[in-house]
Amino acid sequence: QRRSIRAASCAMGEKEMPQTSRDLEAERARTSFAPTELNVLLRGDAHTVEARHRLLARIAADPLLGEGRLDDSFLSRAERFDKSLARMRRVHELGLPKDEAFVATRLFREGGALDKAGGFGLHTGMFVPTIELLGSDEQRATWLPLARSCAILGAYAQTELAHGTNLARLETTATFDPRSDTFELHSPTVGSIKWWPGGLGKWATHAVVMAQLTTADGKARGQQSFIVQLRDLRTHLPLPGIELGDIGPKMGYDRVDNGFLRLCRVRVPRAHMLCRHAQVRADGSFVLSSDNPRAVYGTMLFIRVYLVEEASLALQHATTIAARYSAVRRQGGAPTGAADGGGETRPPPLERAVLDYQTQQTRLLPLIAAAYAVHFAAGALRVRYDLFRASQDVRTLPDLHATSAALKSFTTSLAASGVETCRLLCGGHGYSHASGLPALYAEFA
Amino acid sequence: QRRSIRAASCAMGEKEMPQTSRDLEAERARTSFAPTELNVLLRGDAHTVEARHRLLARIAADPLLGEGRLDDSFLSRAERFDKSLARMRRVHELGLPKDEAFVATRLFREGGALDKAGGFGLHTGMFVPTIELLGSDEQRATWLPLARSCAILGAYAQTELAHGTNLARLETTATFDPRSDTFELHSPTVGSIKWWPGGLGKWATHAVVMAQLTTADGKARGQQSFIVQLRDLRTHLPLPGIELGDIGPKMGYDRVDNGFLRLCRVRVPRAHMLCRHAQVRADGSFVLSSDNPRAVYGTMLFIRVYLVEEASLALQHATTIAARYSAVRRQGGAPTGAADGGGETRPPPLERAVLDYQTQQTRLLPLIAAAYAVHFAAGALRVRYDLFRASQDVRTLPDLHATSAALKSFTTSLAASGVETCRLLCGGHGYSHASGLPALYAEFA
Repeated sequence: QRRSIRAASCAMGEKEMPQTSRDLEAERARTSFAPTELNVLLRGDAHTVEARHRLLARIAADPLLGEGRLDDSFLSRAERFDKSLARMRRVHELGLPKDEAFVATRLFREGGALDKAGGFGLHTGMFVPTIELLGSDEQRATWLPLARSCAILGAYAQTELAHGTNLARLETTATFDPRSDTFELHSPTVGSIKWWPGGLGKWATHAVVMAQLTTADGKARGQQSFIVQLRDLRTHLPLPGIELGDIGPKMGYDRVDNGFLRLCRVRVPRAHMLCRHAQVRADGSFVLSSDNPRAVYGTMLFIRVYLVEEASLALQHATTIAARYSAVRRQGGAPTGAADGGGETRPPPLERAVLDYQTQQTRLLPLIAAAYAVHFAAGALRVRYDLFRASQDVRTLPDLHATSAALKSFTTSLAASGVETCRLLCGGHGYSHASGLPALYAEFA
Repeated sequence: QRRSIRAASCAMGEKEMPQTSRDLEAERARTSFAPTELNVLLRGDAHTVEARHRLLARIAADPLLGEGRLDDSFLSRAERFDKSLARMRRVHELGLPKDEAFVATRLFREGGALDKAGGFGLHTGMFVPTIELLGSDEQRATWLPLARSCAILGAYAQTELAHGTNLARLETTATFDPRSDTFELHSPTVGSIKWWPGGLGKWATHAVVMAQLTTADGKARGQQSFIVQLRDLRTHLPLPGIELGDIGPKMGYDRVDNGFLRLCRVRVPRAHMLCRHAQVRADGSFVLSSDNPRAVYGTMLFIRVYLVEEASLALQHATTIAARYSAVRRQGGAPTGAADGGGETRPPPLERAVLDYQTQQTRLLPLIAAAYAVHFAAGALRVRYDLFRASQDVRTLPDLHATSAALKSFTTSLAASGVETCRLLCGGHGYSHASGLPALYAEFA
């Protein structure tokens, strides 16, 4: 039935090129700038633009990656998750040359080919960076090769059912037992069950679990991070003492298997506590390192920079859709012709494009400006973040924290309301998943 | 996996009554008014309240109707649609006494048992009323018994792919042919395909189709309404010249099969043009009746009154969810206890309920007030609408139009933004379909 419009059984009275296509051509012919130059400005340089075009052609030609969001909206939640995993795998199989990897990642994100991709984004964006930041040299040498080769698949289990941003009050416990040289991890209450972490539902074999450490002397030692194996590497079934699963449907992010994790007196070796900044010795003593603990928050920085970029992408997507729709949708502003019940039949004049109404312009044009203002702000933030990553100069941290936190809050609010405004600017059709806008809002709201 | 929390393999340290239940009991104990009296005030009288309780018990006990929104969110789009049809059928089978029918309809809407129920709402809310308003006595006698008994199932096909509110520019044509005494209905362009009408996708056997009438003298006679059979009554397959189907996934309203309809020179008898206000005679002449054509817009009035009531219900739902969540969610506002890495382990004091923060109150409390202000406004509007329906006094129409249009616009905007605010007030959990809020927003946005 979805194809029946094309298999028309009697001819439509359309001219060869539909009016909508002619409207778009006319708008483009009136452009006052060189689109190619603007593209170079937005992407950084001509080499990047060219690399993007090359990659886009490969994506479009790939049977799995070339499908867009529209087809995905016909899939069930489980099918969408499965397809997301298959696409991630395919991207790795493509074996991109190293200098194209960064461009490719951005392009996949922008084009939706790896749209908010499954647990994998949290594996590479949270699990691996946490080990890099909080692991000792020995721990890095042990876990990073396994994680980077995807021999193990990691989640970052911090949020609990009853505890979100107030990290100090997370309830999951880790109690050190010097006799067995292990930590016992436990979820003492319903509210302490890990809830929301992406990857727990179906994907992850391991997790970094945040828990409240108590040493053998009965003293509380604050939140520490522990690597816990969740599922058998061969059967993918939960290990003893581990209860976990999917937390069910959400407003968006079907491709991420947000899950729950209840730990029932699970024991992990002492070496599984990430110990760059604090460690428990074999004798049970607790030692803080001299490393600057502010670096602990590096993962949050990484996520904030990412979210500012996402805010720009969401606004670019949404305003492009709304601008094109506004150029081809015509309504009112012309004599209604023979609609009064008594006139002659004659071809009525074209109605006015909604883009030509000031009520449409006053809502759309500032959002287009905002999309690219955020684009350049995100670029500037990324440069400063990369400088910090290279230098590890903690003196730049306070300013970087303040700037990234403010930009993240401001730009994501702007993007959420802006995407929703773009949906409304597309009238009733904005409500259809065919417009791409409901999914964009659901994933940014 | 969804039940694994209950099948706990090791005991949780919770007291007998969870803290969340104790929090709700404490809040309720502090109520400064009598909830029973408030209930009577909201529902009109004690009899209605009692009827609601009786019906609620029947709904809760019914295996099909007793399921809530939560379970539905695990279903696929097609399953959700099927279940909606099964529920509608079940409600009819319940055979409610006539004096309970109105209460039941409201209760089903409020409780989500008939949540935005399938094509049936448009059958009873648009198809039947249109025949009542625009049909001659003879047409009413022919079609209403068939429609009311569901021997035929109707859609209201007005909106086209390229034409929405500017009705005068709908492109579907109806050309009268005196020789065969028929109208030929046709979709001349892609933009003229009927697009969005609920019920076209899967459900309807018939539709009222709005089309631009041309009489045999070549004169345009404005938009008229035609009853067109779409599907075979035995096989439910489309009739010759009819192409139709589902328009695909939307932001919400999975239970409504919004569809498309392309008419390829479909002929209907002259008697199928609804002719209370205008008719074509056998000789091809066109006659306007002396009836006041303003009554034509009665269907829009009906929908507006309905939408103001829906706005109130959506706000009542959302604010109830957000208020309860705010009472049981505790975060911050208490000493962090042993979280500094060196203290003693001791049971930490309870955190503060988010309901006790002014930042939460300033957003939630005005919305609770708004929910019930809209409730009483909707009630007053309903009274005036019922008076008009009983009296058919067209002098009351201008004021009723203005009031209903303004209230519809104001209250639905308020409800959409209010529901979204309630979702955000529930923090991350508002993003889960388990909160009920994403579905409420998607169906009101």
